[in-house]
Amino acid sequence: MTDKVRIALDAMGGDHGPEVVAPGAAIALSRKPDLNFLFVGDEARIRPLLDADPALRAVSEIQHTDVSVAMDDKPSVALRKGRYKSSMWLALEAVKARRVDAAISAGNTGALMAMSRLCVRMTPGVERPAIAAIWPTIRGESIVLDVGATIGADANQLVSFAVMGAAMARILFDIDRPTVGLLNIGVEEVKGVEQVKEAASLLREGDFPRLDFRGFVEGNDIGKGTVDVVVTEGFSGNIALKTAEGTAKQIGEYLRSAISRTLMSKIGYVLAKHAFDTLREKMDPRKVNGGVFLGLDGVVIKSHGGTDAEGFASAVELGYDMARYDLMEKIHQGFASVAPEPAAPALAGVAS
Amino acid sequence: MTDKVRIALDAMGGDHGPEVVAPGAAIALSRKPDLNFLFVGDEARIRPLLDADPALRAVSEIQHTDVSVAMDDKPSVALRKGRYKSSMWLALEAVKARRVDAAISAGNTGALMAMSRLCVRMTPGVERPAIAAIWPTIRGESIVLDVGATIGADANQLVSFAVMGAAMARILFDIDRPTVGLLNIGVEEVKGVEQVKEAASLLREGDFPRLDFRGFVEGNDIGKGTVDVVVTEGFSGNIALKTAEGTAKQIGEYLRSAISRTLMSKIGYVLAKHAFDTLREKMDPRKVNGGVFLGLDGVVIKSHGGTDAEGFASAVELGYDMARYDLMEKIHQGFASVAPEPAAPALAGVAS
Repeated sequence: MTDKVRIALDAMGGDHGPEVVAPGAAIALSRKPDLNFLFVGDEARIRPLLDADPALRAVSEIQHTDVSVAMDDKPSVALRKGRYKSSMWLALEAVKARRVDAAISAGNTGALMAMSRLCVRMTPGVERPAIAAIWPTIRGESIVLDVGATIGADANQLVSFAVMGAAMARILFDIDRPTVGLLNIGVEEVKGVEQVKEAASLLREGDFPRLDFRGFVEGNDIGKGTVDVVVTEGFSGNIALKTAEGTAKQIGEYLRSAISRTLMSKIGYVLAKHAFDTLREKMDPRKVNGGVFLGLDGVVIKSHGGTDAEGFASAVELGYDMARYDLMEKIHQGFASVAPEPAAPALAGVAS
Repeated sequence: MTDKVRIALDAMGGDHGPEVVAPGAAIALSRKPDLNFLFVGDEARIRPLLDADPALRAVSEIQHTDVSVAMDDKPSVALRKGRYKSSMWLALEAVKARRVDAAISAGNTGALMAMSRLCVRMTPGVERPAIAAIWPTIRGESIVLDVGATIGADANQLVSFAVMGAAMARILFDIDRPTVGLLNIGVEEVKGVEQVKEAASLLREGDFPRLDFRGFVEGNDIGKGTVDVVVTEGFSGNIALKTAEGTAKQIGEYLRSAISRTLMSKIGYVLAKHAFDTLREKMDPRKVNGGVFLGLDGVVIKSHGGTDAEGFASAVELGYDMARYDLMEKIHQGFASVAPEPAAPALAGVAS
């Protein structure tokens, strides 16, 4: 990496395109002055936004393309239309070619993952990708992965998710040996979670000096912040994430309707407004915007498609952190420390 | 059924045993005067509680046993120690023998499910059981199943969960054709959810006049109340349930800490107290206590182990409703209406 952190921005991604991407980049720049940007997309829309912000313009280049991936394109359609030429693809290609240190896109998740796997490719030693989300907890924040990339991950894949999630946690939380838990269900002796049990044995018996494996956690442990990194396969992880979002909205809705019911409670609300503002800030999804695509041979960040400039700035800063503190190297360190001995013999016959 | 609804109570189940079960039964009786109880457990502990409440005593019998299943017994241990003789087993046996219309236990879930399958057995035509939870939503309540009984259910099992959940919804929500959704993730064209896709085809193309299939829903649709019945396999369902519980606790925690931060916000809290009470009531887990074990040849309800008398009463009333409005018959109606024609040929080769 140069002394600058260079970030490629898919300027056409998301619901709003450059009108959110450019001001988002500007906010991130104000907090991380060593950022450089490569805006990829329609120059006619990007140029005026940069011209209006000299500080941003000074650290930005534009790579023009007419082609962009639509938010509702299926991955196969996106690949047909956008491979080699869309703003999403070209941003990823800049990562691949090491012209930038990370790419950020608010475009659609499926297309971004499909293109990332084709263009950036997997990092050696990792079979399947994972999307890692930052999850606000009572204790602070945790990392949850996979939230939707690899459905039905097997034991070895779950182990690699643990290693990659721990690498990300070392950067984000600045701790040496992040605690890691495997998401499981509390019912004892149930069948069908063999891969989770096997992953637990592998993590327990292997040599992973860069993570502190704490065994199984349950769904309610996520919000408690019981561990720094929660590992699960993509289907359950995605459902956990969306369910938590839904529950937060639902409680917000209850609260709003309860408070607007009487004059007294409205007055109470005004007096406690600062408390509610604190609550709102705690629950602000923009603050933790950005999913990290792990397992690729480069840093790729997915921003929420509907986010605003503040939210996009969070995704940019997440990419900044991952590049500046060398996610890829930390992942390699995590794998390099895998014990050379095979898994416990008792596990050899367990189907996943 | 007689004109009374007869309920067997595992008096020794749960963290508190008869001291919660008896007052819980009394609360339920005050609201459903046509209840009759069979208390199964340690007579020396149960008798004084009934003697202290003549109304309850008048409708209750005691079946004594010294043996009870511990809350942390593994199912295999519970079966070894408690088969044929524990309060849990004997309560289930009363269902099996049609001496009661339903059994309620706050004992441990794994043991209760294992014993239910051995003692009450599956209802003809259903392969695997499901645990159905009542989930508070913005719109009111929905039913979510399976929350932990059948890990990795296949397409046909998911279809049977849909039919059974709809039967339960017809009773609880008093609607003719409950809406049903299959829990899925939003990423398009992902692999590994073939069984969910196949279940969708079966539900779409089959003839199910007792339910209104609405396709896929995502995790955030549960809290919205998008459909009356959300169907998923047990691993994801359990994780969704626990994650929602965790998120609700987490937000409650944020709110408490935000409100106690300043004098002004404390005053605001007092003024808005009624609003907060409404919120607390909305979020009260006791109100929706009780998981229904579906797929058995009888009505079995699992109460939360740590609940109080009010919560246990909810579980009893849930059992009352399922028995009084004939869950078993409604499930059979749901299956009877399955179209005799096979699934669309295109599906025949899809692996699950």
